[in-house]
Amino acid sequence: MQRLSITPRSSEISGGHVSNTVPPVWFQDARLDICQAVSELNGENALFGVVRSAKYDYERELYFGSAVEIRTAIRKIGNSSVVFFQEAWQNQHRAVTAETVILLIDTVTGGPSTLSDPSRIFLKNLE
Amino acid sequence: MQRLSITPRSSEISGGHVSNTVPPVWFQDARLDICQAVSELNGENALFGVVRSAKYDYERELYFGSAVEIRTAIRKIGNSSVVFFQEAWQNQHRAVTAETVILLIDTVTGGPSTLSDPSRIFLKNLE
Amino acid sequence: MQRLSITPRSSEISGGHVSNTVPPVWFQDARLDICQAVSELNGENALFGVVRSAKYDYERELYFGSAVEIRTAIRKIGNSSVVFFQEAWQNQHRAVTAETVILLIDTVTGGPSTLSDPSRIFLKNLE
Amino acid sequence: MQRLSITPRSSEISGGHVSNTVPPVWFQDARLDICQAVSELNGENALFGVVRSAKYDYERELYFGSAVEIRTAIRKIGNSSVVFFQEAWQNQHRAVTAETVILLIDTVTGGPSTLSDPSRIFLKNLE
Repeated sequence: MQRLSITPRSSEISGGHVSNTVPPVWFQDARLDICQAVSELNGENALFGVVRSAKYDYERELYFGSAVEIRTAIRKIGNSSVVFFQEAWQNQHRAVTAETVILLIDTVTGGPSTLSDPSRIFLKNLE
Repeated sequence: MQRLSITPRSSEISGGHVSNTVPPVWFQDARLDICQAVSELNGENALFGVVRSAKYDYERELYFGSAVEIRTAIRKIGNSSVVFFQEAWQNQHRAVTAETVILLIDTVTGGPSTLSDPSRIFLKNLE
Repeated sequence: MQRLSITPRSSEISGGHVSNTVPPVWFQDARLDICQAVSELNGENALFGVVRSAKYDYERELYFGSAVEIRTAIRKIGNSSVVFFQEAWQNQHRAVTAETVILLIDTVTGGPSTLSDPSRIFLKNLE
Repeated sequence: MQRLSITPRSSEISGGHVSNTVPPVWFQDARLDICQAVSELNGENALFGVVRSAKYDYERELYFGSAVEIRTAIRKIGNSSVVFFQEAWQNQHRAVTAETVILLIDTVTGGPSTLSDPSRIFLKNLE
């Protein structure tokens, strides 16, 4: 599990709390390092990062003025896709969860590519 | 079913196409009129618009330079929540779908409120 | 002078009106066509679009729910830079003006490049 | 002079570097504490924070993956307005400067209000 600290911007606030459209941006930033590592572990024409689907659950409101911790874990490793499970916490409360399906793409064919063994081992350690 | 035309901004583009974090903003704007009408049809302390959950499926990429049509329909009317189903189309292709659960809140108690009959009739017409 | 119609997004609203950080995004989109044309009129390694400076004057507030017209004109054509003057209008009132200095860059050297005669004629017509 | 550390978001990147429309958002966040303090030092119906004008100079590109320090100082204290001077630094280089004129508003009349002596003393210490 990885942790990233996010400071909400005033531009991300609407009606006194963080808009529901903002945590997807934070969750994406929290996946970036992992996506880059997996891309590299799959060789030259591999791109890991395309979002196939995303499901967000909003349990509490998030506010300006206090850091948000994004926790990122791998939930399931498929043939050419990976399910991420992420949480946004603020002041000891979980506020939003995200389940995201990320695809490994062959940038030459544009189609899906099979995850290499080194990338599977790397992802297993993040479960 | 309602239709709204959206022009992508250059700031919404990343790596040559619309970022996955952008359609949630467009879907929200396409729900605004309906949410305001339902709030009014539920009286003084009613607020319809809080997103409980959202599920996005990304089927194709969206690009800059061509209008996007957001289609909005009501899929299910619950006791105090409503399921919206929305689609983003560009150049005769469906690119993204969204299933969103929106809550009716009593702004005095902060808890859920039961949808009034007039608001149910209004929503039924958008199925 | 060119005109572009912009529909404010709900995400661009803060405290009941459009945030001061949003019109810069709209002004940029209204310059895009001109910047692309000037880049092409300067040949293969020319890029016209880098913002050297920008000055915004906020005269009135802008609101959600009503279209904004961006008017774009060329104020001054220099050796390797161009001064744009732009205005944002809503409901027959001018709300914001922008004066932006845009550079022509040689993408090989990274330094400034001299505007070609065809690009000067094109820009003159937009004064 | 005040310092605020900002972590660029991936959504703020365009074409490999931070878009010119993004630093205005960071500069605004870096002014927030000061604006709130000055509002309070001017009593009940005073609001300090409306941007009258803003001038940005872009000296270098800003990148993803490295913190940006926003330095905020007061340049001039007028009757009902204050000139802020701000800088964005990354990796020991100054990349962007901002000169912003912020107004003190009387929220009852909507017009400008005179800065109180305590707020002047507070602002003087930030020169």
